[in-house]
Amino acid sequence: MTSETFSPGLDGVIATDTKISLLDTDVEMIIVRGYDLIELAQNLNYTDVAYLVIYGRLPTEAQGREFCETLAEQAEIPDELYRLFELMPKSTVAMDALRTGISFLAGFEDPDLLNDNSHEANLKKGLKLLAQVPALAVNSYRALNDMPFVRPDQSLGYMENFMYMLRGEKPDAVSLDAFDRIHMCYIEHEMPNSTFAARVIASTLADMYGAMVGAVASLKGRLHGGANEAAIEFLLDILKEGGPPRAEAYVMEKLEARARIMGFGHRVYMKKYDPRAKFLMEYIPRLADRVPDGEELASIYNTVEQVMFREKALYPNTDFPIGLLYYELGIPIPLYTPIFLASRTAGNVAHVLEQHDDNRLFRPRVIYSGARDLHPPDKAISPG
Amino acid sequence: MTSETFSPGLDGVIATDTKISLLDTDVEMIIVRGYDLIELAQNLNYTDVAYLVIYGRLPTEAQGREFCETLAEQAEIPDELYRLFELMPKSTVAMDALRTGISFLAGFEDPDLLNDNSHEANLKKGLKLLAQVPALAVNSYRALNDMPFVRPDQSLGYMENFMYMLRGEKPDAVSLDAFDRIHMCYIEHEMPNSTFAARVIASTLADMYGAMVGAVASLKGRLHGGANEAAIEFLLDILKEGGPPRAEAYVMEKLEARARIMGFGHRVYMKKYDPRAKFLMEYIPRLADRVPDGEELASIYNTVEQVMFREKALYPNTDFPIGLLYYELGIPIPLYTPIFLASRTAGNVAHVLEQHDDNRLFRPRVIYSGARDLHPPDKAISPG
Repeated sequence: MTSETFSPGLDGVIATDTKISLLDTDVEMIIVRGYDLIELAQNLNYTDVAYLVIYGRLPTEAQGREFCETLAEQAEIPDELYRLFELMPKSTVAMDALRTGISFLAGFEDPDLLNDNSHEANLKKGLKLLAQVPALAVNSYRALNDMPFVRPDQSLGYMENFMYMLRGEKPDAVSLDAFDRIHMCYIEHEMPNSTFAARVIASTLADMYGAMVGAVASLKGRLHGGANEAAIEFLLDILKEGGPPRAEAYVMEKLEARARIMGFGHRVYMKKYDPRAKFLMEYIPRLADRVPDGEELASIYNTVEQVMFREKALYPNTDFPIGLLYYELGIPIPLYTPIFLASRTAGNVAHVLEQHDDNRLFRPRVIYSGARDLHPPDKAISPG
Repeated sequence: MTSETFSPGLDGVIATDTKISLLDTDVEMIIVRGYDLIELAQNLNYTDVAYLVIYGRLPTEAQGREFCETLAEQAEIPDELYRLFELMPKSTVAMDALRTGISFLAGFEDPDLLNDNSHEANLKKGLKLLAQVPALAVNSYRALNDMPFVRPDQSLGYMENFMYMLRGEKPDAVSLDAFDRIHMCYIEHEMPNSTFAARVIASTLADMYGAMVGAVASLKGRLHGGANEAAIEFLLDILKEGGPPRAEAYVMEKLEARARIMGFGHRVYMKKYDPRAKFLMEYIPRLADRVPDGEELASIYNTVEQVMFREKALYPNTDFPIGLLYYELGIPIPLYTPIFLASRTAGNVAHVLEQHDDNRLFRPRVIYSGARDLHPPDKAISPG
């Protein structure tokens, strides 16, 4: 690549070598540590896949049990975090609260461990973050909405505790199963912007916490993690504007106005159907009776999907069904992206580990199209 | 670039088109908005150059005055920030405190303005951040070290107020002049990792605050902003281990042990002398009498520079003199990187503006060298 040509957005540019995952565009399969992600999501549970992503191999039964115990033991966050959440203005965005919380949490780490980027030290910090992200995400949101804190119940499994904190009560088996499978679908996805941001930051030898803070900052954007919130907002708009009978006309009007409809298409793949979206859409009717407008939303969902394919040849990506599934599960919309971040934490921890284990500073160049050969006056202009 | 070849660390890869700045490697000149950065640093002051970087042209006298007034009016941070600093564990790293502070600050922004990525809205947010970063950097550090807060004095100029908060008293003219010129030298530098991190994050349409948080996270790393702290620590080590007579042997021993000596060389340029280092080194003897060991450190500085050139053909980059200059100015070492971040804020604001004005999501690819064709067991392994 010469300085005269470049690929905006690094489209198609190779950023790194990795053993973690690949979007195999030939067969449109998400390969995670050698496995088909969908096969993992069909058969295992989130903590199994998190172990796989981080350690590079599936756990034995004993390793799986120990991993879950480690996560449970560390699930509680320091008291100062709860005070921090109470200090935040109520208008704080949930993703911003999570970003601040993770950043603040770095100060509670042992200083030697914090600055140690060895594999072992990063693993310790990464597991702690994975353990604590659910309490951070849920309880910062609770504080912003004047809801009482729900401290982690360390007797519960990782995903069960997450739902318990979300709802204030233990989840039923069907909800927990769906929530766990969504979490697996989101766990890792090659080199999306947030994973890339984490690796870029880690490459300065900044620590695990700093890299994770960058990932939260990135995932907030509506071209990235924010898409699942945009997807459900779109379906709810149609519900409000006339429901299923109006759905087709509503989408056509948006397309004519050249509005971007979130939750469809993907830069890298999806000439075929996003395998995650295909897998998860089956859960939509199963959970539809849990909210009053579930059947109508499921019907709108189908219409939007059909019209988008007919008009644009675009398939849904995973944000489209997940937006609706989270809604059916009764999760407040501002928590969709923080929960996505929680699922992706295992993947991002693995990427920071891999980056630090064989580091090269990211430092690209630019094409400069600005002015040249200007000269300043020979004395200061401003009062300083 | 095919999927079979890639450039680790994106070395030499073009990340974006920009009108802000260029390291012109042919002449080893730092071009900022068409001007030679050194000529700017020789003639103008920081607020002039900050205006230039952000607006793309030098201010008129009236614009310069108004710009300084805007910065002064917004220099004070919300009371909750001071309470946040007091909540932080005393072992929190100063850069982490700054990162948390900027992230927290986002919650005080008007929600509509926060999510508005238009040029005008970004300008408002960017100027506010530029105005508030000094109080954030200094007072978080003060809280961590049980020092009383020094609130901004809005009757002072931007750099004068910064030094006033640092020292608790108004600076003398010579110190202020040196501090201002260092700030100009650090203001903008094409596409270093932190600027790249800010643009990567901004490209998801995440807001100005999130992008800035990513820049702080990146700049903390010792391969990046942390280098100025490493540079003075190295000089102080030599001072402690025998002073000027031991300097040459000390450097030789480090080189023989293949230790990396921070503050020398640069990925992109510096076959010649870093123009910023050349410009700033003249200030070292002028400020040497301000600290008891100033003359000895200046002598060690010269020896290290000579040995590094003789043995490695490496010139100092700007972190090497700045480490010593900050020391001579009496600035606590943990604040070197936060102050660097403050100087670079104008540049990073300009880059987020440019990114949002003509956005393309950064989403590169990978080479996958991991396993394939594995299959999971047909039931969960872990307790979940």
